[in-house]
Amino acid sequence: MPNPSASPIGNPISEIQHLQHRHLLGLETYSAAEIRLLLRTAREFRSVLDRPIKRVPSLRGVTVVNLFFAPSTRTRISFELAEKRLSADTVNFSASVSKGEPLKDTARNIEAKKIDLVVIRHKSAGAPHFLTRCIDSAVVNAGDGAHEHPTQALLDAYTIADLDLPKFLDADGTNRLARGDFSGLRVSILGDVAHSRVARSNAYALTKLGAEVTFCGPRTMLPVEAETLGVRVTDRLDEALDGCDVALALRIQLERQAGALFPSLREYHARYGIGLHHLDRHPDLVVMHPGPVNRGVELATEVVDHERAVILDQVTNGVAVRMAVLFLLAPGARE
Amino acid sequence: MPNPSASPIGNPISEIQHLQHRHLLGLETYSAAEIRLLLRTAREFRSVLDRPIKRVPSLRGVTVVNLFFAPSTRTRISFELAEKRLSADTVNFSASVSKGEPLKDTARNIEAKKIDLVVIRHKSAGAPHFLTRCIDSAVVNAGDGAHEHPTQALLDAYTIADLDLPKFLDADGTNRLARGDFSGLRVSILGDVAHSRVARSNAYALTKLGAEVTFCGPRTMLPVEAETLGVRVTDRLDEALDGCDVALALRIQLERQAGALFPSLREYHARYGIGLHHLDRHPDLVVMHPGPVNRGVELATEVVDHERAVILDQVTNGVAVRMAVLFLLAPGARE
Amino acid sequence: MPNPSASPIGNPISEIQHLQHRHLLGLETYSAAEIRLLLRTAREFRSVLDRPIKRVPSLRGVTVVNLFFAPSTRTRISFELAEKRLSADTVNFSASVSKGEPLKDTARNIEAKKIDLVVIRHKSAGAPHFLTRCIDSAVVNAGDGAHEHPTQALLDAYTIADLDLPKFLDADGTNRLARGDFSGLRVSILGDVAHSRVARSNAYALTKLGAEVTFCGPRTMLPVEAETLGVRVTDRLDEALDGCDVALALRIQLERQAGALFPSLREYHARYGIGLHHLDRHPDLVVMHPGPVNRGVELATEVVDHERAVILDQVTNGVAVRMAVLFLLAPGARE
Repeated sequence: MPNPSASPIGNPISEIQHLQHRHLLGLETYSAAEIRLLLRTAREFRSVLDRPIKRVPSLRGVTVVNLFFAPSTRTRISFELAEKRLSADTVNFSASVSKGEPLKDTARNIEAKKIDLVVIRHKSAGAPHFLTRCIDSAVVNAGDGAHEHPTQALLDAYTIADLDLPKFLDADGTNRLARGDFSGLRVSILGDVAHSRVARSNAYALTKLGAEVTFCGPRTMLPVEAETLGVRVTDRLDEALDGCDVALALRIQLERQAGALFPSLREYHARYGIGLHHLDRHPDLVVMHPGPVNRGVELATEVVDHERAVILDQVTNGVAVRMAVLFLLAPGARE
Repeated sequence: MPNPSASPIGNPISEIQHLQHRHLLGLETYSAAEIRLLLRTAREFRSVLDRPIKRVPSLRGVTVVNLFFAPSTRTRISFELAEKRLSADTVNFSASVSKGEPLKDTARNIEAKKIDLVVIRHKSAGAPHFLTRCIDSAVVNAGDGAHEHPTQALLDAYTIADLDLPKFLDADGTNRLARGDFSGLRVSILGDVAHSRVARSNAYALTKLGAEVTFCGPRTMLPVEAETLGVRVTDRLDEALDGCDVALALRIQLERQAGALFPSLREYHARYGIGLHHLDRHPDLVVMHPGPVNRGVELATEVVDHERAVILDQVTNGVAVRMAVLFLLAPGARE
Repeated sequence: MPNPSASPIGNPISEIQHLQHRHLLGLETYSAAEIRLLLRTAREFRSVLDRPIKRVPSLRGVTVVNLFFAPSTRTRISFELAEKRLSADTVNFSASVSKGEPLKDTARNIEAKKIDLVVIRHKSAGAPHFLTRCIDSAVVNAGDGAHEHPTQALLDAYTIADLDLPKFLDADGTNRLARGDFSGLRVSILGDVAHSRVARSNAYALTKLGAEVTFCGPRTMLPVEAETLGVRVTDRLDEALDGCDVALALRIQLERQAGALFPSLREYHARYGIGLHHLDRHPDLVVMHPGPVNRGVELATEVVDHERAVILDQVTNGVAVRMAVLFLLAPGARE
């Protein structure tokens, strides 16, 4: 499914070389040019991951702290691997650091230890933004409440840019998606869209790159502000999949939602889960999921293991995208 | 007790240079030649541990994940040190990763992050074997249920090969044990043999190298399949120690066994514990234990601290043996 | 407040070049010359922390274990950063290592893995000292019960040496404090002095360097052995601040003390907390605190954020001081 021989993302001549932002708090304020720069840079690091020696000296002597107030082993490991492959020094702080002290004091204490970059995950929306007002280091949002999860959206965009879909081949044989031009691409995001930072960040990234985005889920899970995000909404899966190139299924938070927002997991799967019959009916449809999948709920187990599901590519690309983010935000990178 | 001037383990001329196996799941299927290759390689790394700079660049840029579903700080640290001394990049996953997802999905997620080697500890026998069917990386078993604990058996074999026992000196002054030839060596493994992966892995390794192995413990703790392992069994300690060169006492799992399989710890020690009087009666006997020792139970406290107990040598050798395992299974090592 | 252009701490010509001690268990037995050597060395490492590449190869291939039996994320992270910036290999053990085994056996197990340096934090006073009798590695005390916390006192002394106080400028424009000559300096240590290892270690360090130290707190929190430490005691804050150059407020352990040793936090603050009015009344007073501060208890929140509070400098200097300690105690450093 990935297309390693695709041309570089974006056109190096006409594109920017540095981020305008000092932080990555979310994609709402990022420009398409910045997102394309991130994807282009990620492509270079992605190739490093296929080498026998998966390490570059780019951030040697740079110290990154992973400040995870909300647990997330998968995301933390992805960042930690990205940091190590850039030769950065890595320190993990967990929630217990704070001993009830204000985030501001925890942050200043950390920065006083001469940290260059802070990756923060927090259950409260806005915590990363607050952090930038306390400290001078660059801040990367690794997920804040229901607000944004920008590196997830970037890895999703990267994975789409890497798809080899005939529909997006130009006359000269080059792939428009690979250039970061998503015009004409239709992406449907399925599930509990209202509570999903992944959906929100993806809506920003994908529409900026030119894609048409549809949110689909039970009415109780659809956000009221969908229109302002520039996305279509529907509560009918068939409508969402009709003419759709990529279906991105969100993870159902079993602990929160079962029984509350919809009658049962079985009914959820029947109405919003993707099964083999959907893949049969939509022979070009690509399936994505941020993981971990609840097999038989968001996706039938045969769909998870299907060649048109690119879930593991998403995971691999996540490391490359995070390398790009850290590299472009590190001290000295913007000069 | 260790003999640093011993000749190399095995004869480099007539021995193999690469492992036949892609993984280390257990020693049951490993050949004597492979075990000797591991011991020879470990010897080279063992000398690194005595240098002021205890680090070699052998696995620079190689990423190893320590996937510990069952807690074991000692074994995890030993692997982690082995990895760092080989200059590998190390990431620790703990059980909490999985969020209830199937091992297969956890494993694939990890592999998608472009990991080269996976070290796995799991409470279920067979989990490492199952892992090899999910992922392409080399897998090292760091203990799976009551099945195998191959690196423990390798470090025990290394420690024995390093002993300076007059009985095994050949006419030319070389040490047969150091060449990985254990013929004529008598090893007794004491304790809860039936539930011990250490006993099982040791039985495989030691008999393949030519040793005679005796299992000794209360009848309730002796395995039914002892005969098929090619070992003698007895429930009498005196019989086990008679003519024995090395006594390997297993750790009693206090939480599981006290009161169930034998009447009391005091009685266990009286019948199966090694005391100073045993060392007096068997003046050449060497005592081993995988640690941590329950002082006064498996071994009298004076035995733990006795010069004929090589428990700390086992610990040191464990790092060298794990360096050898990782080195010989790393990508590119088999070419 | 810090004075980067200050002359080096101590006079390199007339000072010692190596520590007399093999360990850092406490400052009670350290000489003024040794403390000055540590401060001088820390100054060199402090400058490393301001470089873009915050890493020196000084301890490449040296392995340090952080053995934290009592939790302390801040101190552990500070040591871990110090180790990484010296290019040492770092392994973290936590309390769970021990499985109820004696400290002696845990320590020997760790040392058998060929560790060069052990940093230990333990709730029992004397545990680091006991450790030196079990193992050969150099031992650094990262806090033992109510006994000592020597690296905290060293970073406090470093922070004082770095102050730019006119009163301590010599005729030639050089700073006496920066040379490690604290004669004429008056430091008051405020709070629960009786139960504070920070107070005790600071009393040793500061008086050895020539400072006059006053302990101040409620009578229930003043130690009986104050006289033998060579310090003044008072239960009146005004008396403690009169003529005082540096006020070091200790952290109140809310979980232990509220309601027991004094009536209320409000009353504690009213009698022993430092407010803006104290800074007004004592225009040269510098405020220190080991962190984390209970805002509104030991210090008014405006004092925490005041330019005369050097709390964040203490944190930064802590990394440099710990680099110096590890560097001077590492194998080979004393030759």
